[in-house]
Amino acid sequence: MKIGRQAHHSSAISTSNEATILVRGRDLARDLVGTLSFTEHFWLLVTGALPSAAQRRVLDATLVAIAEHGLVPSVQASRLTLAAAPEALQGAVAAGILGCGSVVLGSSEAAGRFFADVAAAAGGASLEAAATQVVGAYREAQRAIPGYGHPLHKSADPRAARLLALATEAGVAGRHVEIATTVERLLPQLTGRELALNVSGAIPAVLLDAGFPLLALKGVPLLARTAGLVAHLLEEQQRPIGFVMSHAAARAIDYDGAAPPGFEPSEEG
Amino acid sequence: MKIGRQAHHSSAISTSNEATILVRGRDLARDLVGTLSFTEHFWLLVTGALPSAAQRRVLDATLVAIAEHGLVPSVQASRLTLAAAPEALQGAVAAGILGCGSVVLGSSEAAGRFFADVAAAAGGASLEAAATQVVGAYREAQRAIPGYGHPLHKSADPRAARLLALATEAGVAGRHVEIATTVERLLPQLTGRELALNVSGAIPAVLLDAGFPLLALKGVPLLARTAGLVAHLLEEQQRPIGFVMSHAAARAIDYDGAAPPGFEPSEEG
Amino acid sequence: MKIGRQAHHSSAISTSNEATILVRGRDLARDLVGTLSFTEHFWLLVTGALPSAAQRRVLDATLVAIAEHGLVPSVQASRLTLAAAPEALQGAVAAGILGCGSVVLGSSEAAGRFFADVAAAAGGASLEAAATQVVGAYREAQRAIPGYGHPLHKSADPRAARLLALATEAGVAGRHVEIATTVERLLPQLTGRELALNVSGAIPAVLLDAGFPLLALKGVPLLARTAGLVAHLLEEQQRPIGFVMSHAAARAIDYDGAAPPGFEPSEEG
Amino acid sequence: MKIGRQAHHSSAISTSNEATILVRGRDLARDLVGTLSFTEHFWLLVTGALPSAAQRRVLDATLVAIAEHGLVPSVQASRLTLAAAPEALQGAVAAGILGCGSVVLGSSEAAGRFFADVAAAAGGASLEAAATQVVGAYREAQRAIPGYGHPLHKSADPRAARLLALATEAGVAGRHVEIATTVERLLPQLTGRELALNVSGAIPAVLLDAGFPLLALKGVPLLARTAGLVAHLLEEQQRPIGFVMSHAAARAIDYDGAAPPGFEPSEEG
Repeated sequence: MKIGRQAHHSSAISTSNEATILVRGRDLARDLVGTLSFTEHFWLLVTGALPSAAQRRVLDATLVAIAEHGLVPSVQASRLTLAAAPEALQGAVAAGILGCGSVVLGSSEAAGRFFADVAAAAGGASLEAAATQVVGAYREAQRAIPGYGHPLHKSADPRAARLLALATEAGVAGRHVEIATTVERLLPQLTGRELALNVSGAIPAVLLDAGFPLLALKGVPLLARTAGLVAHLLEEQQRPIGFVMSHAAARAIDYDGAAPPGFEPSEEG
Repeated sequence: MKIGRQAHHSSAISTSNEATILVRGRDLARDLVGTLSFTEHFWLLVTGALPSAAQRRVLDATLVAIAEHGLVPSVQASRLTLAAAPEALQGAVAAGILGCGSVVLGSSEAAGRFFADVAAAAGGASLEAAATQVVGAYREAQRAIPGYGHPLHKSADPRAARLLALATEAGVAGRHVEIATTVERLLPQLTGRELALNVSGAIPAVLLDAGFPLLALKGVPLLARTAGLVAHLLEEQQRPIGFVMSHAAARAIDYDGAAPPGFEPSEEG
Repeated sequence: MKIGRQAHHSSAISTSNEATILVRGRDLARDLVGTLSFTEHFWLLVTGALPSAAQRRVLDATLVAIAEHGLVPSVQASRLTLAAAPEALQGAVAAGILGCGSVVLGSSEAAGRFFADVAAAAGGASLEAAATQVVGAYREAQRAIPGYGHPLHKSADPRAARLLALATEAGVAGRHVEIATTVERLLPQLTGRELALNVSGAIPAVLLDAGFPLLALKGVPLLARTAGLVAHLLEEQQRPIGFVMSHAAARAIDYDGAAPPGFEPSEEG
Repeated sequence: MKIGRQAHHSSAISTSNEATILVRGRDLARDLVGTLSFTEHFWLLVTGALPSAAQRRVLDATLVAIAEHGLVPSVQASRLTLAAAPEALQGAVAAGILGCGSVVLGSSEAAGRFFADVAAAAGGASLEAAATQVVGAYREAQRAIPGYGHPLHKSADPRAARLLALATEAGVAGRHVEIATTVERLLPQLTGRELALNVSGAIPAVLLDAGFPLLALKGVPLLARTAGLVAHLLEEQQRPIGFVMSHAAARAIDYDGAAPPGFEPSEEG
């Protein structure tokens, strides 16, 4: 059946014949393999154009910043999945990626939209006023302000400061970085809480200023975390801890449902 | 419950405190962000050590080579998934990754194991004899020889030649590249078929020679394709073709089950 | 690190010791296996109580109604994934489930929330007024009215009428069924379009009236489609069509990116 | 591109037109919704025919038996995923399903193949001899004997005994049940270990005897666990424990990589 409007029938990313693969109009084997770094290739794939040195540098920095942070929930889900289904590494990677959602890792895109909202509200006028207005609208709609606060890095997220400094060094810091820091400064008076800019706020700030598309922002933590997941899944094959983590997690939870008189759960819960 | 042996209780990839995140023993924000390329960081994550320039160059080349090849099944599955569930980009990426399996994209790892089997069989002796023996054993077990043949690039996969040339240029080509080309040369007489080395054969050959771990090989196409998927999912948001592909796919299939007399399926099948 | 509030530390679904598994307080092997149907067990798992005969009948009907509708996008994604990765049936099922999203199959939950909004707006007063108000609010926010309209079953979705009739027969049809039909009647004047109640609107209407929890509604199409996916994946192993669909889908799309002069894409695009 | 052989171009599961949906040749809305139980519909979808009362009873029993067993790794992965990505229930279900692999839940299919191997080896002759031969071959190939042993239910899995008794009551117990119990009896002398038949061994034994197809066996735990996952994900929305489990899991693991002198990890690891 025909679902949805079907106005488009083409793609501009890649085509091929027996001898040649074109990616974004370029001969992959001849012109890209061995010439571009993977980060440059990612920018080319997403935008259709090669990055400048500054754009490449900022994208590299964001990918490095968000690739790894230890045994976070998505890494745990991935390692548990490999322990249970070692025949399919791709399934374990997919399980990890599915945990890059709105709460834990996917807030880069939400923060990017928030900054874009502030930029649109400001027009040519004061960022303070625009930020105050947009933060107010979010709070009225009971939406969290994305990109601020971190459960561990409470006073400052070291990755955020580094990314902003780097964007300045690279000469790309602009309107979105300014919005990100303005909001950070205003948040205590607007919300009564000190919430520092976190890595998921810094990433869209520097990438939007560098010209990376808003609708692909979520791809940056997804790609970066895939690299971290591969490292964890290699370690899981060599020194498995998936079932150890599972056992500890189960022991942390009590059963509070009904039970027959005298029923004793096994120690492990 | 305690599942499996639980001998290990530690991880060596990352730890942190409020001020600092360590990745492979290094201060992430201070020493890695803005210093390493994403490819160097991926090597560090997986192996625990920084790559040499040659290692970095070979890993970059393999990631660029395998990131994108048009509307292949995994890309289609990913775009169909985003069309149906636009609220979760991570789900669409995961669906694409799940199609990196033993048949289509995951054969890098199988080819790496095959090359390692030949290397082990050879010991210090003739690669021809070892290759003949291992190919024979695979055929007796009715297993395909992984890493050879391509449905489109029949006479030669342009990415394979480029990767091998680059590994030679970079000075890392060694035993596994020699095995890969030896097998390619012997296959017509051993199997009666001309099957050229494909990209999934070239990737493990050059990466094993560069010192990348066998058990992480499958992570290379998984990471690379994630970059391609992000590009396709941006395009799917801007110029959607998921439902167009779905409609065409459904029309290609007839219904041959039972039906009441006179039943007319809708044109679209 | 501690993410989020951590107020709860218990679960009421299942516990066990070496001799006995309790599910919702009952001895699984002794009292449930061989006694309950799977549908009754699903109700017990979700709600903690056994269903009445009417509740069981309505839940069975919704699961049967939504389990299968041919080669829809999620089935295609699942069959493509199995073709590419036959080693992991669970990955193919997961890929199919990921396509049960807000656009194609997941609208049961959205429709349930919409009906609940109308019920809340009505209080004890007129459903017409409440429906008019809530539909207006959705349209002002540019949100689609979930549960109405179908790309193939344009004048009526045969499953919807059957489910409503069955809920009446079973004696459970109540407020939510009334809202569903009231909205269907009002939509032409409110939106200028004739949109018939579809299966994803009928399912929450009858299930909410039967007492099934709103926050588990999306589980009904997910569970039902898993049954359909298993059937398709058995057929895919016996009479594979995944790559045939993939080929047809790729041929339906043109490449409109840049290309060197004289470049001829292979026929298959 | 054309991948693989493309000999088949049809499907026999479902077709439709504007007024009617056919499933396995029957009018879904008129003849199946409200008439069949979900379990009967699942059998019809998979096999193309309606089940007998005995077949339905056995299939119901297996689905009930395997649907739920507390906070096992796949349930944990699913709840962690919902905690991190609450916008996509389907992603959390998919993450749980990805953990139904060869080690934890997917061994039903492996056990079914093992029983089929023994049946084939026996021909009309002694099951003891055939079982001895096939167990020997598995052990020589260093493959585990699937369907025996359980980390918690060490002396007996209560679900296995119940399923076998039920198959006998229903009159379907036959060759595969006989093989399952014969192997259980022989294992101590063949392997030196007492390993009781577990639920993943009992399920294929009774289902193969009931006529359920071998290649769809893995679909039974996948479908059943989806029901359990839906219950857990409802509870996770109402009384979240995902991040509590994640915190406990992380605390169970030490960091044993390099660190600068004096570095103190945060308490939570």
